[in-house]
Amino acid sequence: MKVVITGGTGFIGLLLAQRLIERGSLTGASGRAEAIDKIVLFDVMRPPSLPAPLEGRVEVVIGDVTDAALLGRLVSGESVAVFHLASVVSAGAEQDFDLALKVNLHGGLALFEATRALPRPARLVFTSSIAAFGGDKLPEIVTDETKPTPKTTYGMTKVVLELLVADYTRKGFFDGRGARLPTVVVRPGKPNAAASGFASGVFREPLSGIDYVLPVGPDISMPLLGYRRVVEGLIHLHELPREALGHDRTINFPSIAVKVGEMVESLKRVAGNRKIGAVSSAPNPAIEAICRTWPGRAAAERAKALGFPADTNIDSIVRAYIEDYVDR
Amino acid sequence: MKVVITGGTGFIGLLLAQRLIERGSLTGASGRAEAIDKIVLFDVMRPPSLPAPLEGRVEVVIGDVTDAALLGRLVSGESVAVFHLASVVSAGAEQDFDLALKVNLHGGLALFEATRALPRPARLVFTSSIAAFGGDKLPEIVTDETKPTPKTTYGMTKVVLELLVADYTRKGFFDGRGARLPTVVVRPGKPNAAASGFASGVFREPLSGIDYVLPVGPDISMPLLGYRRVVEGLIHLHELPREALGHDRTINFPSIAVKVGEMVESLKRVAGNRKIGAVSSAPNPAIEAICRTWPGRAAAERAKALGFPADTNIDSIVRAYIEDYVDR
Repeated sequence: MKVVITGGTGFIGLLLAQRLIERGSLTGASGRAEAIDKIVLFDVMRPPSLPAPLEGRVEVVIGDVTDAALLGRLVSGESVAVFHLASVVSAGAEQDFDLALKVNLHGGLALFEATRALPRPARLVFTSSIAAFGGDKLPEIVTDETKPTPKTTYGMTKVVLELLVADYTRKGFFDGRGARLPTVVVRPGKPNAAASGFASGVFREPLSGIDYVLPVGPDISMPLLGYRRVVEGLIHLHELPREALGHDRTINFPSIAVKVGEMVESLKRVAGNRKIGAVSSAPNPAIEAICRTWPGRAAAERAKALGFPADTNIDSIVRAYIEDYVDR
Repeated sequence: MKVVITGGTGFIGLLLAQRLIERGSLTGASGRAEAIDKIVLFDVMRPPSLPAPLEGRVEVVIGDVTDAALLGRLVSGESVAVFHLASVVSAGAEQDFDLALKVNLHGGLALFEATRALPRPARLVFTSSIAAFGGDKLPEIVTDETKPTPKTTYGMTKVVLELLVADYTRKGFFDGRGARLPTVVVRPGKPNAAASGFASGVFREPLSGIDYVLPVGPDISMPLLGYRRVVEGLIHLHELPREALGHDRTINFPSIAVKVGEMVESLKRVAGNRKIGAVSSAPNPAIEAICRTWPGRAAAERAKALGFPADTNIDSIVRAYIEDYVDR
């Protein structure tokens, strides 16, 4: 089996590739575990280096996600698994509407067409976002049945892909599955253009000994999920039988609701005697405005019924980050 | 003011143009009634003739709705009102997925970009459809807050445009408004590729003295709206102040739920002593399958609160058709 991961050199893409290499196999459209022969990480820019466990084990392809010819060459073969993670993220999409439409909408369509052209319908997993929810009438807790009324261009393009994936699947062009991700923490490395970036920064920077200024106040609540659970969840989503999902192919991933103030408390608790940078707050109205359009809590009934892995508390998410990135 | 109507030579497009000529003015982005200087009917095929009241009063432009340069020339001027009615309809879209994506999705995007390019944000009204609703978990009555999970490519593309219109509006690119139309009756002339076409055929054909074979059984319930109310409603939607709609720009239009059996009863009641064709039934599984994905009843709380015109019974809809098309 060939696995193609778009946005493959991003944080989740690299972790997913690493986990797939560890596993060695994946259940796809054939319904049985198949040995993974090849992993292609497709992305827009070549990373300076790959994590050591990936060196020599993956093919990195750099290109434009709207390049139909290139996608046709990548998404090819007898047995293919597609993970579509590539996306212009929230604050970036607010700044550049045209780029967001090009990458998120037209890029998604180009990938769907390439996948549709395969000789046998493949499974395709894509990452939607809790930014699908927004609008004037958001309930306190969003569920799988809440009407998506996104209030960001990022969220809008995600819901559009959810609808396209459901219809391409209904038509039998491929077998698509969508993961509506909450804010994924703790992201290592440099901040990205996501408005939710502080939910990682508030842990990452102080744990590197750097002072951190929060762009939002302590009362904003965010649904969070640790990256370990995200990667496990994406693989679980790919391996579910087609009929497990019904017509509506996208599900809320599990999350825990954590207030910004609670993130700071968790940081201090988990850091213990470590010397960490100081956390202060200087709210940025543009970032706060985007965050306030998102739901503070999200239920994930479908994911729970389907056995998706869930975090139970923020401390264990922070401990995993320290284990994987700080102490390693 | 220049009024551009896509799908302008279709049934609703022609009626809308006629009504606008009768009125002479329309309230647009300026917030005040403006004299209508020009009406452009944009469509994919030239009609053999125009209704007499439109002859010499409208400009007919034939072209491809994805032709950005042509749209740029059409949607131009100091004050423009856009009505986007063009669409590949339900059964047609099920037969030709690629054409549906081209016309409905990419055509919509091209028109939105042309409208965005205007020097001042214009109002844009587009027709969505109750085919937005579908899926596995449809409630007995759909409302403005029901999650759209369309089970046709037609419905999918309509929901995608709803999302795009909300986001283009939020960004200030134009002031968009969407009308989620129920099945519009009674359509004169030849049947189109809509799976719901029987809801017009069952009246039109017998009233022309032609026998009619229903492709569905008597128990299927359809939310219906007479074309007079549709045209009034589209104008009302254009004239609402921007803030009347909030973030979610598309509303359910009012409708009455009518079973197929009740349509036949109404036909006989209203026809009275007229000699009419016989109605029989030979269910077509493909048509029935599409119809069963649609909601049988739809509430329209937002439209009612905003003063949209509603029908109260099927008999008056049939009487209007006889007055406008049979006896004229």
